[in-house]
Amino acid sequence: MPRFSKAVSSLRSSEIRDLMTLASRPDIISFAGGMPGNELFPVQEVEELFHELDSKKKQSAFQYGPTPGLPSLLESLAGFLEKKGLPVKENRLLITTGSQQGLNLLAKTFIDPGEPVLVENPCFIGALSAFRASEAELRGVPVDSDGISMRALQQEIDRTEKAKFLYITPYFHNPAGLLYTTNRKEQLISALQGQDIPLIEDDAYGDLYFYEEDRPRLKPIKAINPNGIDVCYTGSFSKILGPGLRLGWMLVPEEIYQKCELIKQSADACSPSFTQVLADAFIRSGQIYSYIASIRKEYKRRAESMVAALREHLPEYVKWNEPRGGFYIWLTLPEETDATRIMMLALERGAVFVVGKTFDPEGKRNNSLRLSYCNNTPEQIAEGIPLVTDAIKQVCG
Amino acid sequence: MPRFSKAVSSLRSSEIRDLMTLASRPDIISFAGGMPGNELFPVQEVEELFHELDSKKKQSAFQYGPTPGLPSLLESLAGFLEKKGLPVKENRLLITTGSQQGLNLLAKTFIDPGEPVLVENPCFIGALSAFRASEAELRGVPVDSDGISMRALQQEIDRTEKAKFLYITPYFHNPAGLLYTTNRKEQLISALQGQDIPLIEDDAYGDLYFYEEDRPRLKPIKAINPNGIDVCYTGSFSKILGPGLRLGWMLVPEEIYQKCELIKQSADACSPSFTQVLADAFIRSGQIYSYIASIRKEYKRRAESMVAALREHLPEYVKWNEPRGGFYIWLTLPEETDATRIMMLALERGAVFVVGKTFDPEGKRNNSLRLSYCNNTPEQIAEGIPLVTDAIKQVCG
Repeated sequence: MPRFSKAVSSLRSSEIRDLMTLASRPDIISFAGGMPGNELFPVQEVEELFHELDSKKKQSAFQYGPTPGLPSLLESLAGFLEKKGLPVKENRLLITTGSQQGLNLLAKTFIDPGEPVLVENPCFIGALSAFRASEAELRGVPVDSDGISMRALQQEIDRTEKAKFLYITPYFHNPAGLLYTTNRKEQLISALQGQDIPLIEDDAYGDLYFYEEDRPRLKPIKAINPNGIDVCYTGSFSKILGPGLRLGWMLVPEEIYQKCELIKQSADACSPSFTQVLADAFIRSGQIYSYIASIRKEYKRRAESMVAALREHLPEYVKWNEPRGGFYIWLTLPEETDATRIMMLALERGAVFVVGKTFDPEGKRNNSLRLSYCNNTPEQIAEGIPLVTDAIKQVCG
Repeated sequence: MPRFSKAVSSLRSSEIRDLMTLASRPDIISFAGGMPGNELFPVQEVEELFHELDSKKKQSAFQYGPTPGLPSLLESLAGFLEKKGLPVKENRLLITTGSQQGLNLLAKTFIDPGEPVLVENPCFIGALSAFRASEAELRGVPVDSDGISMRALQQEIDRTEKAKFLYITPYFHNPAGLLYTTNRKEQLISALQGQDIPLIEDDAYGDLYFYEEDRPRLKPIKAINPNGIDVCYTGSFSKILGPGLRLGWMLVPEEIYQKCELIKQSADACSPSFTQVLADAFIRSGQIYSYIASIRKEYKRRAESMVAALREHLPEYVKWNEPRGGFYIWLTLPEETDATRIMMLALERGAVFVVGKTFDPEGKRNNSLRLSYCNNTPEQIAEGIPLVTDAIKQVCG
């Protein structure tokens, strides 16, 4: 047996891996993955964009690029982000190998083994995994329907051993599906100002809003640009072009950028030039805007099917959110319920989802589950939801 | 100032970054980079291969893939590696985001802060950077023209605090250009057997041999499959297709694979599906073999130009290797020479290279320099080498 590092021994195997294997079985309707629908990718458009590039550009797709990203993509992406009001010029932009890498770099930048960080409970599993890999002590702060619970957050801020950062996903939260209210964001900003606790603001889903009226609520805290908080804003092409490109970004203050770039050098030297060239062409052609508009409609259609099916079949004692964007609906079951039992039964019937404890920083709380509608047609949703709700009724009565 | 982690404070900025900025100036002839020639990439071939794929396959290029790699690429790559005699079935294959990520994952798997690892001196800078990021204590072992120095290695093996692994690049070493002899490999195997020191065997350049007669020497230690050594074999598509795809691999024993896969999940979830689909098609079409054959010839031609120019212009007191493959020629200057002075002068004249201390685990020893011929035409080489040799003569007399 090789002598492994201590850090590696503390990593635990993700249950979600086995689940994903199940979820890929053609006879199972999967509400488990956070993957965009395969049939929605702009395959032909991207192929044509590449075809039309000059040969120098095509060659550069095969070559190493600078660690922070291809200059052309940094420029076009800056334009894309400035349209959201983000202070691109006063910060530095770094292309990452998916936003997963962005979270990993930020974790390494801030966390020494055993140090505390604040995360929402429930929390995106990729973030939990990145922070665990840096051996952080994860302190979960509950969320309610408006955003992170301010009372619980204030208690954490007041603790003697100060957290190294706070990580939140305010816009169509994964897994909780929630969209922070403007008021809650303002409270959060007040609470954090001058506290020396950087904020990691993960905005992987913000473009996927269903209602124009929500646009003011979608203004990133990074765009509000509050004094006295180091806001590290992360985003991704995964939901607005394709996760297979493995491209995300972070927009962060200069001194944090310097650290992240150094770590990225040793991590993978640079993100794939090939897909950076594709993403750059996709932005520059303007197609990214029409594409996002089209998938917004499609995900709304899928969400509405799931909402309709849940309204019809879900028992009243289950609490849930009607999504206003993004990929997810979060079900909260009666207190003592074990969602794993429900999942086993649903699986027998032919449907699968992710159980709540997967998203709990402590890996315990399990009276909840996440349903994704992103990767299913309305027909599959109409067929699959009763399989899930039947399993719920069987367990909860 | 944010409170950064200790690990991040210990990272130092790579001098090579500024150098690369210089090296990209069109008025400078650069022998600095280890980048393949842009004009050599199989751009059209790869574009056509993608075009011919069915739409399901094209869609999968945009989607998440499994953390260890796309099954289709794992299968075709296994075939490619089995042709080298590698024991693919008795080990596990993991696709990495460049071989840089492979080295980073292995570093995290084995190294706790302050623990010693053995590296060649000089050593590939990407490896140094990955091991430093895990806060390893780097113990350099000198190389001679046959490979790693056995006397120095034995001394290291005999030390009380045992190293966590030994990292070597036996086939067209970066930067030393050397190819291990069969005899030296056998001595190395004997020395390591039963010592509980895993061997990381980096084979990024082995396919780029210039002489058929060298093929027996190119048999990987992993293919020899010696008892009593955990051999972690790493490779890359960077030199045989394109670094911009960011695809490498590791072939390692099951228990090491399990750890690396876990760390990779938290690092970037999976390597880019898009470029994995391209690499898979490139292997399956058989074009990878004819392409490698063609670049072997071209790099040999470039190497021969550089050898001819060095023969003509280099003073006799400079020791160097005639390359038998790969990208590099390593010049050893008289003992007290400072290669940085030579570089500054060469730069004024219009040529650039990488100084020796960059590859020294301690960052000190500087009476050497690395010349790359991979990214220059014979004409550029004939023009640029005298600029370097003049600078050498000016400094060394």
